[in-house]
Amino acid sequence: MRAFLLLPIAALLATLPFVESHSYPAPDSPSMPLPQFDASGALVRPINFEHWTFVGSNIGMTYSDEHPQGPGEFHNVYTQPEAFDTYRSTGKFPEKTTFLLVVYQPAQKASINKGGYFEGEMTGLAVSVKDSSRFKEGWAYFSFGEGGDLAATAKALPAPMCFSCHNQHADDDHVFVQFHTILRSARHKSLP
Amino acid sequence: MRAFLLLPIAALLATLPFVESHSYPAPDSPSMPLPQFDASGALVRPINFEHWTFVGSNIGMTYSDEHPQGPGEFHNVYTQPEAFDTYRSTGKFPEKTTFLLVVYQPAQKASINKGGYFEGEMTGLAVSVKDSSRFKEGWAYFSFGEGGDLAATAKALPAPMCFSCHNQHADDDHVFVQFHTILRSARHKSLP
Repeated sequence: MRAFLLLPIAALLATLPFVESHSYPAPDSPSMPLPQFDASGALVRPINFEHWTFVGSNIGMTYSDEHPQGPGEFHNVYTQPEAFDTYRSTGKFPEKTTFLLVVYQPAQKASINKGGYFEGEMTGLAVSVKDSSRFKEGWAYFSFGEGGDLAATAKALPAPMCFSCHNQHADDDHVFVQFHTILRSARHKSLP
Repeated sequence: MRAFLLLPIAALLATLPFVESHSYPAPDSPSMPLPQFDASGALVRPINFEHWTFVGSNIGMTYSDEHPQGPGEFHNVYTQPEAFDTYRSTGKFPEKTTFLLVVYQPAQKASINKGGYFEGEMTGLAVSVKDSSRFKEGWAYFSFGEGGDLAATAKALPAPMCFSCHNQHADDDHVFVQFHTILRSARHKSLP
């Protein structure tokens, strides 16, 4: 069972060692890790997010009347610690704020577990970046894949694909604060 | 809907301001935040865990053949960044390693959500501490409550309540590494 859980993750990590050398600064850096773009303008896939601030998890979230079978996927959402601190203290997300939406397949009945779901294989990553100097809408959205074979870089998605919904329905500055427990508690403190 | 989500959290935070002054060091401290015990030997409730390392989430996990109705609760699990780094680099959890198990009620059908579950009200906190000088079993387990009204301090639970199962079934040094995605990836790298 352990091998079943670890191998897909190991395979995933093994495919992308070259990204590490020009990705975000080391986790212990005192400065905010900034989004990195290659010469073509594509976003380099963020890695080493273990030291980022986790803001909330959800499972199987749907936004239409269609209800897929099964529990759906886990989405774990992170932002830079510095972006979180700024939001908590000022109520504003700073420029270069980056959110990661990390996708895990639901797993169960491993080890002593008999019901419910824990996080199995990581299969996807979506990212949002706030950068008014680079994106006319202020925020841009990127997908590095959904099937477990993540790309090293990703171009910004066309605005209608993500921006429109975030712009219309997200609680605060295109961020779905309402769905993320740690962001909700931070937002509360910053409200007038 | 926003008020519904925020008020329980605000009420929870408002009940415990006095804990902050003698709790864990500030998140930006370069040293590992250490568990704090009061004069009676009770553990002071850890707070300000937003900068700790999130290691995984799960929902409705059961370990018996009974399957409760509904999705169950979210459990978000954290450890100190320094404990995580040590585990990743050496394969060992250092003394004073602390795990937080933060309990959230499942929420849905708020805002544009129509299915699946996100994390609603925080209602519980359980903690484990590795301290061989203080606990003869090496690890001790603490509950700060399950109903939303969390205690400021907690005594170690009797060993049979948590220790026995962690000792018998946890993947590595009494820690259920097998259920937590970030710990699994760290463990893999440290295996011989």
